[in-house]
Amino acid sequence: MKVALITIGNELLSGFTVNTNAAWIGIELGRVGIEISVQHTIQDEKKDIIFELEQVSKKVSIVIVTGGLGPTHDDVTASAFYSYFNDTPIFDEDYWKDLTDQFSKINYKIPDVNQNQAMKPKKGDCIPNDFGSARGLLYKINNCLYFALPGVPKEMKAMMKKSVIPILKDQVTNPFITRTIRTTGIPESALAEKITNTIDMRTYNCSLAYLPKLLGVDLRISSQDEQQIQKFEKKIKPVIEKYVYGYEDEALEEVVGNTLKKCRVTLATAESCTGGLLGHRITQVSGSSEYYLGGVVSYNEDAKINLLDVTQETLTKFGAVSEETVKEMALGVRKLFSSDLGISISGIAGPTGGTEEKPVGLVYIGLSSVKDLIVKKFNFFRDRDSNKQISTQVALNMLRLYLRDE
Amino acid sequence: MKVALITIGNELLSGFTVNTNAAWIGIELGRVGIEISVQHTIQDEKKDIIFELEQVSKKVSIVIVTGGLGPTHDDVTASAFYSYFNDTPIFDEDYWKDLTDQFSKINYKIPDVNQNQAMKPKKGDCIPNDFGSARGLLYKINNCLYFALPGVPKEMKAMMKKSVIPILKDQVTNPFITRTIRTTGIPESALAEKITNTIDMRTYNCSLAYLPKLLGVDLRISSQDEQQIQKFEKKIKPVIEKYVYGYEDEALEEVVGNTLKKCRVTLATAESCTGGLLGHRITQVSGSSEYYLGGVVSYNEDAKINLLDVTQETLTKFGAVSEETVKEMALGVRKLFSSDLGISISGIAGPTGGTEEKPVGLVYIGLSSVKDLIVKKFNFFRDRDSNKQISTQVALNMLRLYLRDE
Repeated sequence: MKVALITIGNELLSGFTVNTNAAWIGIELGRVGIEISVQHTIQDEKKDIIFELEQVSKKVSIVIVTGGLGPTHDDVTASAFYSYFNDTPIFDEDYWKDLTDQFSKINYKIPDVNQNQAMKPKKGDCIPNDFGSARGLLYKINNCLYFALPGVPKEMKAMMKKSVIPILKDQVTNPFITRTIRTTGIPESALAEKITNTIDMRTYNCSLAYLPKLLGVDLRISSQDEQQIQKFEKKIKPVIEKYVYGYEDEALEEVVGNTLKKCRVTLATAESCTGGLLGHRITQVSGSSEYYLGGVVSYNEDAKINLLDVTQETLTKFGAVSEETVKEMALGVRKLFSSDLGISISGIAGPTGGTEEKPVGLVYIGLSSVKDLIVKKFNFFRDRDSNKQISTQVALNMLRLYLRDE
Repeated sequence: MKVALITIGNELLSGFTVNTNAAWIGIELGRVGIEISVQHTIQDEKKDIIFELEQVSKKVSIVIVTGGLGPTHDDVTASAFYSYFNDTPIFDEDYWKDLTDQFSKINYKIPDVNQNQAMKPKKGDCIPNDFGSARGLLYKINNCLYFALPGVPKEMKAMMKKSVIPILKDQVTNPFITRTIRTTGIPESALAEKITNTIDMRTYNCSLAYLPKLLGVDLRISSQDEQQIQKFEKKIKPVIEKYVYGYEDEALEEVVGNTLKKCRVTLATAESCTGGLLGHRITQVSGSSEYYLGGVVSYNEDAKINLLDVTQETLTKFGAVSEETVKEMALGVRKLFSSDLGISISGIAGPTGGTEEKPVGLVYIGLSSVKDLIVKKFNFFRDRDSNKQISTQVALNMLRLYLRDE
């Protein structure tokens, strides 16, 4: 089954928006065994969209179009679909009433320009949008399926999951099955070495891909035979177990959160260079208030002294980015929140502020419990955002390993 | 001058690699006034590459191809170029000697597989690569330019800057200029209504695009005539001024940060439902320690009472998500950090935890200074991440407007 993905938008061609939608759709279709064979990005021009529909429908049986369904004059996808399929849309009074109600709830009078979003096709169907006013379109013509979805990632993703993928899944006869194993704390090459030393790929009817990202390496095993995947996983598991934190799209903060909840252990955070990112990640998990009590962003010295009981002496003698300070921060925040665990981060995020002795990327992470006080030192990257991201990942992984070994 | 960009690689179609090359090339060409009119991503297949070259050369005068120039069997771009242009490449002894020397310098014997990288075209030219072994290709046929570059971002970028862009720049007679105006706090349709009520687009020789994102709408004006852009901007500015926070790729946290720094005003944050995201965003700006003193993530009631001086009475009577609590949080955090401004957020991020009276998406944001105490109430979305993101955006925008009106 061949899929063509057409992403529409001048902002994609100009580079103002990176085409993360295309990557996301590629991954999600891959999960159900469907591959994209061609992906085109074109301008918001009706004639270009019609030209593309003509071209790709010669080569594929499924066409997914994203973008250009908004209310303004440069949103021409729906109009291109109506022309291409010789359809005459009609005004959907019920949907217009819904839209008007939604706008009035947020105290806005609905602009007239939104009226085009209340049109519905005669020959095709509408795809509901739970997060926005732009409904999608679906036409089935000559055994070919044509979908139009909005370009706003949140809306597109929800509609793909709820409406598009279930339809496509039904059409796949011999699907590829994939299994994603998520690791952190080991570089791609070291992970590859461990695996190739353990297993002879040729004896398994499945393929393995390494997907390295800033925060870890995902392993993707795929095959048409589920048993082969299970056997393969069972074989490599023992040598990589320490680094495996989850499967499929589980996030590390979710895995750690589940363990904290299950063990009824509470947590507080003391952040300096990460500025609140660790707390943000922990609270991305619904229900995190059951184990996360809160935190302090001690961005300046006074906050470290007044809130976290770091001593002036420690700061003067060793500095804010030091093993000693991070120890006191972890102890201090655990005391302040009366939590079971306290975790602390202090480092030099960069790009400025480094010295020869304490370069950009130097980060200390501390973990305090009733019986333990652990501090680890790291040398990460040269850029601010990467340093903040990786610091929180390592902190969460320290928590995961600590809870596992308890 | 029309450009087609063809990016080659199964990893792009599967979504394992996000196509940041396409965005980067779009931005860089945009800087010299060149627009990409179409961008295609295709598989590493020789016949597909030849098909694409045939197709796009009917529509454009410049074709840039990236990817597939490596030494392995799935690198077929050079071979596709030779076939398409009926060229018979010859072995470049000098370059092969260079490559062999380079490998021996890092104590590697050069693999035979690299020999194909030492081929050079007869009808075309090679583009030097300072960071890798894969040289690029350039063919000039019938007033059309065809470039092939490697897909490795570092190599592609260096070659674009050094070789490709200088050639293209010479060909541009009337470049397009763009201006991006960034707004927040107003939906796309309402913004469009304000603009279309003010201005007759037809009287300006420029085009306007709306780029809506979760946190705001960017407006992009483009034209070949810079004066037209300036006139257009001057005309619409008065009606949208309140919503404009910046230009080009400025972030709201950067704009707010610059104002705080300039006015020598310090800030502390008290976050409940956003869990630290506001602090994270503020500290994404290098140098934020000059005005950001720190914050408290008061995720549970005790933290609100003990650290922020919210009274038990307020919490019992009005609840944690209320105007009264958020007021006390803003006051409390300003006092705790002795900062000039205190900002506080409390809400129901969802997806659970909502009631009829206090639904998911209900968020209060407070701002305290020596002379003011402002609280605003919002009804945002149904999903956790969007609620956290938009809450921090609105908080930053409240700060921006407060500092502007001071």
